[in-house]
Amino acid sequence: MASTPDGYYDIVIIGAGPVGLMLSTCLARWGYKIKHIDNRPEPTATGRADGIQPRSLDLLQNMGLKGAIMAYQPAKVYEVAFWDPPATGDGIVRTGTWASCPSFIDARHPFTTLLHQGMIERVFLGDLEKNGVEVQRPWTITGFKSDENENPEYPVEVNLEHIEGSSRETIRAKYLFGGEGARSFVRQQLEIPVTHKDPIAHVWGVMDGVVKTDFPDIKMKCTVHSHHGSIMIIPREDNMVRLYIQIASSTDPDWHPRKTATAEEVQKTAKKIFEPYSIEWESVAWYSVYPIGQGIAERYTLDHRVFLGGDACHTHSPKAGQGMNTAFLDALNLAWKIHFVEKGFANRDVLKTYEVERKAVAESLLSFDNKYAKLFSERIPQASEVEQASREADESADDNEFVKTFKEGCEFTSGYGVAYGPNVFNWSKEHAASSYLIHPEGVKLRTGHIMINADVTRVADANHIHLENAVPLNGSFRIFVFAGKPSTTKTALRDFARGLEKKSSFFSVYRRSDEAAVSHHEKHNPHSLLYTFSVIFASKRSDVEISRDVPEVLARYRDNIFADDRWDRRVPDAAAAAHAKMGLDQERGGVVVVRPDGYVGVVAKLVEGSGTVDALNEYFGSFSNKSVGALLAQI
Amino acid sequence: MASTPDGYYDIVIIGAGPVGLMLSTCLARWGYKIKHIDNRPEPTATGRADGIQPRSLDLLQNMGLKGAIMAYQPAKVYEVAFWDPPATGDGIVRTGTWASCPSFIDARHPFTTLLHQGMIERVFLGDLEKNGVEVQRPWTITGFKSDENENPEYPVEVNLEHIEGSSRETIRAKYLFGGEGARSFVRQQLEIPVTHKDPIAHVWGVMDGVVKTDFPDIKMKCTVHSHHGSIMIIPREDNMVRLYIQIASSTDPDWHPRKTATAEEVQKTAKKIFEPYSIEWESVAWYSVYPIGQGIAERYTLDHRVFLGGDACHTHSPKAGQGMNTAFLDALNLAWKIHFVEKGFANRDVLKTYEVERKAVAESLLSFDNKYAKLFSERIPQASEVEQASREADESADDNEFVKTFKEGCEFTSGYGVAYGPNVFNWSKEHAASSYLIHPEGVKLRTGHIMINADVTRVADANHIHLENAVPLNGSFRIFVFAGKPSTTKTALRDFARGLEKKSSFFSVYRRSDEAAVSHHEKHNPHSLLYTFSVIFASKRSDVEISRDVPEVLARYRDNIFADDRWDRRVPDAAAAAHAKMGLDQERGGVVVVRPDGYVGVVAKLVEGSGTVDALNEYFGSFSNKSVGALLAQI
Repeated sequence: MASTPDGYYDIVIIGAGPVGLMLSTCLARWGYKIKHIDNRPEPTATGRADGIQPRSLDLLQNMGLKGAIMAYQPAKVYEVAFWDPPATGDGIVRTGTWASCPSFIDARHPFTTLLHQGMIERVFLGDLEKNGVEVQRPWTITGFKSDENENPEYPVEVNLEHIEGSSRETIRAKYLFGGEGARSFVRQQLEIPVTHKDPIAHVWGVMDGVVKTDFPDIKMKCTVHSHHGSIMIIPREDNMVRLYIQIASSTDPDWHPRKTATAEEVQKTAKKIFEPYSIEWESVAWYSVYPIGQGIAERYTLDHRVFLGGDACHTHSPKAGQGMNTAFLDALNLAWKIHFVEKGFANRDVLKTYEVERKAVAESLLSFDNKYAKLFSERIPQASEVEQASREADESADDNEFVKTFKEGCEFTSGYGVAYGPNVFNWSKEHAASSYLIHPEGVKLRTGHIMINADVTRVADANHIHLENAVPLNGSFRIFVFAGKPSTTKTALRDFARGLEKKSSFFSVYRRSDEAAVSHHEKHNPHSLLYTFSVIFASKRSDVEISRDVPEVLARYRDNIFADDRWDRRVPDAAAAAHAKMGLDQERGGVVVVRPDGYVGVVAKLVEGSGTVDALNEYFGSFSNKSVGALLAQI
Repeated sequence: MASTPDGYYDIVIIGAGPVGLMLSTCLARWGYKIKHIDNRPEPTATGRADGIQPRSLDLLQNMGLKGAIMAYQPAKVYEVAFWDPPATGDGIVRTGTWASCPSFIDARHPFTTLLHQGMIERVFLGDLEKNGVEVQRPWTITGFKSDENENPEYPVEVNLEHIEGSSRETIRAKYLFGGEGARSFVRQQLEIPVTHKDPIAHVWGVMDGVVKTDFPDIKMKCTVHSHHGSIMIIPREDNMVRLYIQIASSTDPDWHPRKTATAEEVQKTAKKIFEPYSIEWESVAWYSVYPIGQGIAERYTLDHRVFLGGDACHTHSPKAGQGMNTAFLDALNLAWKIHFVEKGFANRDVLKTYEVERKAVAESLLSFDNKYAKLFSERIPQASEVEQASREADESADDNEFVKTFKEGCEFTSGYGVAYGPNVFNWSKEHAASSYLIHPEGVKLRTGHIMINADVTRVADANHIHLENAVPLNGSFRIFVFAGKPSTTKTALRDFARGLEKKSSFFSVYRRSDEAAVSHHEKHNPHSLLYTFSVIFASKRSDVEISRDVPEVLARYRDNIFADDRWDRRVPDAAAAAHAKMGLDQERGGVVVVRPDGYVGVVAKLVEGSGTVDALNEYFGSFSNKSVGALLAQI
């Protein structure tokens, strides 16, 4: 990329909110040349999104950004409390509290992290700076066109302007990304309509501030219903609290979606709702009125050169707490696919999966939100139902509709409910693969879902490692070779390595051209920018000898060779907990291919002979630009 | 302290290594006026100490500094490997690997953290800056005198000078602390002799650098013995490794403690020792020769106004990895005692316990080091012995001498072996207390030892909390009221609160004078700078209602009210794991007093009537300046 001429960029990113920053941060780390602009002179100062879901925190940890987020001492929400009017009389009473990420979800961070969006943006901006990207502010986009015939390499022309009109630039890029929020200029120019799933049915006032109150759950996430109206409470950093206060509802006799209220009016309402508890404001950091309904853009792109993401293509009810998390995953999904196309690996068609995967998620989130709200408006769940819903067992035949919806709700709000349907990347059981090794019996990993977490011990330094986090977000497919017992899989592992080294393998076809110059300290990408290998033995650490047990090509990933010897409470009797959690044979292992964004792509048996690599050749060959594997070479 | 006149300080601290920085950081946080100087123009650039023990990492976490340490991505040592010559033939073979902090030690961080001392210093300097303290560099001390008759409030006069002699200051202070290392000017002026426990018996070369090697355990801590000499390997951040290479030993025929060697000579020796493995240096960051023997200063103070700490009063074999950790605990031990004297709580006599407690620790470390080395030089332990030594059970009748010493070694190297003998602060079973409630049957907490860790749930926000870390290092005694079952202890808890509120109680006698002005957001010191209360119920979180179950004075500590409802693998069958781990009755609870530095002071039963507060009055009254409790008031 060093050779990109002046005025030419790999990508132009409009907007430095969560979606733009995540995209920029990924692509900057992977070496792309970026022009990133934002029309605000500073990062977000107050208000906006503030909820990081459990799954998103995993992602930030995988990016090495969790520490910087936690340094701001955010609030953590482990439980949600429900307050309602009592059966008789005035006031409010607590009717229940539930875990926001119950133990049936196997989460590393079973809580939502609440932190002002501006601080989260600063963490990303700090990372971008390390990679030489500075957001150009306050600049805006005034026009663009995209024509592959005019310039096949840099088909997009973009016009940028300082918001005071004092300066202008016209630049060319391979891609343009519109992440400028709900009123996206890029979306409007593309004339992409937004479908409102749900007409505006509520107007909410949102207030961030510091309060003094004797309400006992002020540090919890709460839904408060009273005869005077409804409030949602979200605790925040620095003793702050966010209150969502319903100003108007479509069921009101005088309903109007443009109805508004002053901060003082809203505070007065809040005081009534909180009775018999008292509440006083020491300070108000931000106040706004949200009449926004939920909508989805019909397209996320027109030509796979100009893309949209985040609020530019889907808006949520603010109280669903989905905005920033959905934005992160939009950006991540697009980032690695652009990377694979630009590295000459994948054919340009894979970019189509961005809209398919992410729009389906946005739609299911929105329709789920409606279903959930409807269910709760009908009746208050019983304690026994909550208890049942929170149990560890994944599925239970006797779950009633409420319990099912509640569980689904927890999965959505934790972020673990995001899952991609079967496609070229996600090979389900039903995939018409010719290899019989794909998707072995008993596997608990689900393609299109996030990899299951597991603790392992690194052989080289005996460090305790979170396997799902062992490989950082480096834009590579993560190939986990669960190698079972070394004595059982010795030949299979050797044959796997031989298969990799064959000239036509998915691995050999995409080896780095600069491989000879790569430092011996390089941990994850010594051979290829597109694959990182890990090997996990069902052994005690001290029984693994890398030089004896691991074929040379895999031994090069010495930081990613693990012993599956850590006890796990979820599989207390398993000798090899990581194998057991994945549903892989503890003797024979299996190979798990995880997409660069952490979602499981395909699982194959580990067998003697060429079968396992043949299966992976088939998988990678299905979206590769070059022909991969012996069979495909004959096509 | 705001009223301290110009040129007058609470304390003058000489030296900004680990001991000086820890002392300065504590006292700055607690509001003292500090003059802190160092004779180096910059923090440590290369070399020196680099090992943070498990217990020290707990301490740094309690200070809120762990995140900043971990942001440097230090190496973590979980296991130690031993390499020796094979039974026959040349070269080296691995003879065993052992956990450096085996599971019989209940540690939150069962690893040693390896990071360059300069980075650790920078973390402290950053914290000091937030509290308005800047280390004055490069300045040195040229003289001092201490005379309480001349000036009872600021008895110490200190002469300071820029190392180039360009500028001078004479200032007065309440205390002077010499933390300037092994060649301490303050110690020399006080004419305190150093006793060498052990004459210099080895000369070691120490080299930090980046290497390329096929030695498989280069990322582990290793002890390598070969026919060509001995090496100790310590992994470091940034792909670095530290090698300690023995240059000379008193058993050599040509032994001389001044023997030295060049970096090239040492590298040549290392290559021979590593055979048949290869080792090449890519870079060398630091090289030094260490002929230092182990010694202890005879006194740590003369008049309890001028103190010494860290290397100024004890030097260790560098390979014991004790230097920085011992320095931290010296400083912490002194800091809170000065705080208690200066706040008018404790009589000045308590300062005597600094030397008593810390010198005993230094002596036991040194004598243990000799014992350990001797045991290992006699024979290589058998695998079964290591296995036995690593088991969870605390003590076992059939432990042989090796296993006992090994366990003791693990406790020392992890930092959990540091324990203080019975004295005014640490009331053992044998203490001649008049209260029969002190040290109830079955208690597993040991006075003078660190508090046992436990997981609990905070009632106010349902956050999962490490109980031992719930109260930050705020200079206060931590009083943990384990309240058992609310239905059982209702009266006892009410009586405890009533006892506190009595005018003569240890609590009432030392309430803050500015209590009325304290913010309602203050979590830990709303009533007093000297005590922080916590209440832990043996209940599920959702069953605790603070307004109903907690008396008002204790309910004010709403952030420190916990439910003991988290499962713990070490007491898998306990309904209330924290109570069980402490050895407290799960119905009736008990009160645990923890010193400001985290060591258990006293444990008492929680009973109905005045007994429990009487017991605490007796404890605190034994070192308080004011008379405390009804009984003492009559003396």
